[in-house]
Amino acid sequence: MTDTTTDPLVIFTPSGKRGRFAVGTPILTAARQLGVDLDSVCGGRGICSKCQITPSFGEFPKHGVTVREDALSAWNKVEERYKSKRGLIEGRRLGCQAQVQGNVVIDVPPESQVHKQVVRKRAEAREIVMDPATRLYYVEIAEPDMHNPKGDLERLIEALEEQWSLERVIGDLRTMQGLQSALRDGKWKATVAIYDGRDGVAPRIMQVWPGYYEGSVYGVAIDIGSTTIACHLCDLNTGEVKASAGLMNPQIRFGEDLMSRVSYSMMNPGGATEMTQAVRKAVNTLIGQVAGEAEIARTNIVEGVFVGNPVMHHLLLGIDPVELGWAPFALATSDAMTLWAREIDISMHPDARLYVLPCIAGHVGADCAAVVLSESPHRQDEMMLVVDVGTNAEILLGNRDKLLACSSPTGPAFEGAQISSGQRAAPGAIERVRIDPETREPRFQVIDCEIWSDDPAFAAAIGPTGVTGICGSGIIEVIAEMRIAGIIDEDGAIGSRAAVGTERMVKDGRTWAYLLHDGRTGDGDGDGDGGGPLITVTQNDVRNIQLAKAALHSGARLLMDKMEIDSVDRVVLAGAFGAHISPLHAMVLGMIPDCPIDKVSSAGNAAGTGARIALLNVAARREIEKVVREIEKIETAVEPRFQEHFVNAIAVPHKTDAYPNLETLVTLPKVSFSAAGGGDGSRRRRRARG
Amino acid sequence: MTDTTTDPLVIFTPSGKRGRFAVGTPILTAARQLGVDLDSVCGGRGICSKCQITPSFGEFPKHGVTVREDALSAWNKVEERYKSKRGLIEGRRLGCQAQVQGNVVIDVPPESQVHKQVVRKRAEAREIVMDPATRLYYVEIAEPDMHNPKGDLERLIEALEEQWSLERVIGDLRTMQGLQSALRDGKWKATVAIYDGRDGVAPRIMQVWPGYYEGSVYGVAIDIGSTTIACHLCDLNTGEVKASAGLMNPQIRFGEDLMSRVSYSMMNPGGATEMTQAVRKAVNTLIGQVAGEAEIARTNIVEGVFVGNPVMHHLLLGIDPVELGWAPFALATSDAMTLWAREIDISMHPDARLYVLPCIAGHVGADCAAVVLSESPHRQDEMMLVVDVGTNAEILLGNRDKLLACSSPTGPAFEGAQISSGQRAAPGAIERVRIDPETREPRFQVIDCEIWSDDPAFAAAIGPTGVTGICGSGIIEVIAEMRIAGIIDEDGAIGSRAAVGTERMVKDGRTWAYLLHDGRTGDGDGDGDGGGPLITVTQNDVRNIQLAKAALHSGARLLMDKMEIDSVDRVVLAGAFGAHISPLHAMVLGMIPDCPIDKVSSAGNAAGTGARIALLNVAARREIEKVVREIEKIETAVEPRFQEHFVNAIAVPHKTDAYPNLETLVTLPKVSFSAAGGGDGSRRRRRARG
Repeated sequence: MTDTTTDPLVIFTPSGKRGRFAVGTPILTAARQLGVDLDSVCGGRGICSKCQITPSFGEFPKHGVTVREDALSAWNKVEERYKSKRGLIEGRRLGCQAQVQGNVVIDVPPESQVHKQVVRKRAEAREIVMDPATRLYYVEIAEPDMHNPKGDLERLIEALEEQWSLERVIGDLRTMQGLQSALRDGKWKATVAIYDGRDGVAPRIMQVWPGYYEGSVYGVAIDIGSTTIACHLCDLNTGEVKASAGLMNPQIRFGEDLMSRVSYSMMNPGGATEMTQAVRKAVNTLIGQVAGEAEIARTNIVEGVFVGNPVMHHLLLGIDPVELGWAPFALATSDAMTLWAREIDISMHPDARLYVLPCIAGHVGADCAAVVLSESPHRQDEMMLVVDVGTNAEILLGNRDKLLACSSPTGPAFEGAQISSGQRAAPGAIERVRIDPETREPRFQVIDCEIWSDDPAFAAAIGPTGVTGICGSGIIEVIAEMRIAGIIDEDGAIGSRAAVGTERMVKDGRTWAYLLHDGRTGDGDGDGDGGGPLITVTQNDVRNIQLAKAALHSGARLLMDKMEIDSVDRVVLAGAFGAHISPLHAMVLGMIPDCPIDKVSSAGNAAGTGARIALLNVAARREIEKVVREIEKIETAVEPRFQEHFVNAIAVPHKTDAYPNLETLVTLPKVSFSAAGGGDGSRRRRRARG
Repeated sequence: MTDTTTDPLVIFTPSGKRGRFAVGTPILTAARQLGVDLDSVCGGRGICSKCQITPSFGEFPKHGVTVREDALSAWNKVEERYKSKRGLIEGRRLGCQAQVQGNVVIDVPPESQVHKQVVRKRAEAREIVMDPATRLYYVEIAEPDMHNPKGDLERLIEALEEQWSLERVIGDLRTMQGLQSALRDGKWKATVAIYDGRDGVAPRIMQVWPGYYEGSVYGVAIDIGSTTIACHLCDLNTGEVKASAGLMNPQIRFGEDLMSRVSYSMMNPGGATEMTQAVRKAVNTLIGQVAGEAEIARTNIVEGVFVGNPVMHHLLLGIDPVELGWAPFALATSDAMTLWAREIDISMHPDARLYVLPCIAGHVGADCAAVVLSESPHRQDEMMLVVDVGTNAEILLGNRDKLLACSSPTGPAFEGAQISSGQRAAPGAIERVRIDPETREPRFQVIDCEIWSDDPAFAAAIGPTGVTGICGSGIIEVIAEMRIAGIIDEDGAIGSRAAVGTERMVKDGRTWAYLLHDGRTGDGDGDGDGGGPLITVTQNDVRNIQLAKAALHSGARLLMDKMEIDSVDRVVLAGAFGAHISPLHAMVLGMIPDCPIDKVSSAGNAAGTGARIALLNVAARREIEKVVREIEKIETAVEPRFQEHFVNAIAVPHKTDAYPNLETLVTLPKVSFSAAGGGDGSRRRRRARG
């Protein structure tokens, strides 16, 4: 019986929830009755110690209470045993042991919350609140009774219902096969992992451990990219990333880009199956790696979340991607999927469930859905443009009212392909470039080296690898800097040595090129014998980047037309490559529309983050399913205005779009070298996906 | 618009449903609107021809209408094409083609009903109404659209919802893997098999065929007995049994009875797995046999229903039955299970679903639940006793108000084991016996031979096998006949040659035996050289049958006590063996309590029939799950009164129970041979299951 006037007042922080409870009420009980988020696996039996709390004593004028030293029952044997065995932070108590004796203020530390928050590095990033599908429950099960011959499973399910209010729990065959010995070994006490996808399917017993299970359960978030596969192993209780690993996608041997893999499938009977087996094998290797690194059994990995573009999505699932190779680019399924890991031969817990995010359209995949989840434009008031830069750019535009998506075939130039000195991002690749607007002399940084090339320590610092080429972000910077320094004009034409006035301009066939680095004069090993490559930016390089950025820009512009806006409030560059792009240079180049520069940010591997969110918070799965259904999908291939935008977007930064924010930062010289071979702005590109 | 006064009246028979419909309304549409049970797979597109109906013309004073010859639209091209290709019974029309023109009376023939009735041989048997979990639907699917990039699966699901009002249908991975080519091959028309278990789990696409699929889908009902496994292959549209097959349970090599198989598992690590593999292999063999016999692909078998006693149930499912070997006889699960065929390595359709009936108690299995379904005591007003006679007898008693169940360890005597001349039911085994009460001369029939042994044609008719022994039903008859003829007394003691007064009485050690057949005088091959066995019924044989029947009777009596009744209205003898027992002899022996003899019947393989009901009618699954939960389970092993009943039930027919019905049929002689070594009525048996 609770007397609402004289019983002690219990106030929880940080929630601020409060209530009066009879003397002797355990803090855990009080928390539950008030709906305070206080964890417990053992249900208050003093076993799991997840319900740690910190009582505060003294005067609390804000709360209107005075807390005496004896406001809680005395430190007891259960707490002492736990503290001596595992340690307990000074001042902490176990919420199931400490009982109310007087008015008290109780702080629930973050790690004692069920819905604890996972820390993300970026300040503006959406927070991840722990709410996984799989959780552990400790239960005490009724022993079998001849007079009431219910099965062991039925008695376990009753215990879960009585002790945890879990309804409609089901156990499948594998559970049953080990159940009887587990219950007897644990003397009718057990810890049960239950998967509840909250998708209309009944909660399901995943695993039964005898007695109290000390360990945790884990999940993997996996991003299957065309080039690399990335895997994060997360603790499903804390949300902590325990290990991460990446691997080249072994499908590369069937084709570098998506379209060549689709073609491989079209041309080779069984080709899709080969690629499916290759990617599944790589995923299994990765899972083995992260499990090894975290020193856990792979059978303790009970869930996985997968994202990937539509072709990767289909190949992972064993669906021939052939229909994605031609219009109307029909997906086998656009909805999210929940399946058994064993259905696609992924080796983890034998009953592990996998969740595959929904695809948005035939070219806009589950990876883009994951980007939506990570960057959450649908939760913003600001009009946000999200660009996932890759061989295909996926572009999202919108806010909480409306969200549009398209993909645009940028081609591989941003990844260093089709560029004379281009290369993949790797040590030795130029990634940062500055050109002095007066002297037109360049300086640069290479990957994994902090020292700029004009520093005397540079040659020694870069080591024997030397300077090997230019990676994607480097090519964007150098061309943008060439535009700022007046080396190329608005049309992208490179000026002649005479017009630009520097010996850096060198002949390249009938056009001019800009000499960024002469490897002949030093191979970087410091012995001065030369032997490195000549690194130039040719007219053709500039053209290829113009085409790529025009595809990107025109995709974004198309969405802006559909949204009937002329500017955006915020731009997010996503993708592993996007993380390295300089916002200013991207804007000078005209990759992205004008925007306040402090509102342009890099999200890194947003697809991977989105997968992690879906892994750790099951409500996020329902959220992304709903959002994806509501996204308006624009097919650039059949939009007449796309071509028009594309033509205008060839210019650097753009023929017609205004860049007021950019103009406050940099003045682009009004030069024209069109006689030198530029200006083929109407050149069309074959539509090539992948 | 329907004018309720002047529109033509459409009357359906046999349902009697009627309504007015506008001129031009197809009969199928009218039937659907009235809720008349008229089948259609193609949804009225003139493809499937399942909606055949028979119009009647002329005066129908009973219905108050006159039907003119032109009451339906004229015979059309679709009907003509169907008739010429496949034939159509004279007078039949296709319900989707024939349109209302005037008042009309329409008969829906049984084969055109969705919920058609399956014929059963026994008049008193419960009818089986077709309502399978898996049904076929023909749909037309929207083609993919770049501007609305829904996946093929999502458009198929929409079509199912729009055209068939099927809600929440899901498709799993395997569906998806073949979906795209099926839809394109069928030019966006397809036939879809959907499994809807109506158990709270969403309906699921099993298979997609391009265009209209002419075939059917099938299911198997499988009864795993300790000794034999029986399999029926059923058409899931018509309910017809297309093929049946049986096989010895290969687990016999691990132990003849259930308890020895449980012991095998206890004694041998991996023993349970060996037995699991053996039974699954046998099931796969049987499925191959029935599929072969019916000339269908085994992948067209989309469902299976399994029944078996608890040990067979557990071993099939790969659950170690060890806990069933000792008190409290804990089942791993007592509830029904739905699982994938592949989970237990049963090879049929790759996504086939299996339904395993619930177990009632640790000794009363899913086979007994199937008997409940087949005999349906829970639907009767009469108080029904159902006895499934086997090594263990499962006993059910009750009516629609209350149902009790127990099992009783009869031992193997009824199957011919522990009987000196006993044998399994096979050609050569004596199965019918009559003894002349005056002369005490016997005559008998052997299995597969119609001619009685006292017929001169007998020797020639039985062929070279000769008379080899006595099977279970034979032993019951001979002992009951010996009682009627005064050869044994009420205590089961066999009289001496002097007391009985026939040369048929022969010495058998210190006791007497009755010579049923002297094989020495003829081996049955007609050459008169003798060489066959001496077939006698010994005192020990009588004792063993007394113990077996006492176990059965005392189980039934215990249930009658619990029910607080002294007689039953009806007795059903179930089980393959039960089918051959003579009701009169069973009652003389005292196997069963007294009952009007015309109310004692044999149900044959009721467990197999129950499995078939659960296969063909999904509502029956929910019904048996509910009934099983409500059955009151009696554990004979711990009921003190069981031993008391057992002692009284040793007598033939019974020491204390009255047999008023039996007395009107036969007068049992009052003889006593107890000096001859009988009367050890208090002898106790070790409790042995299996």
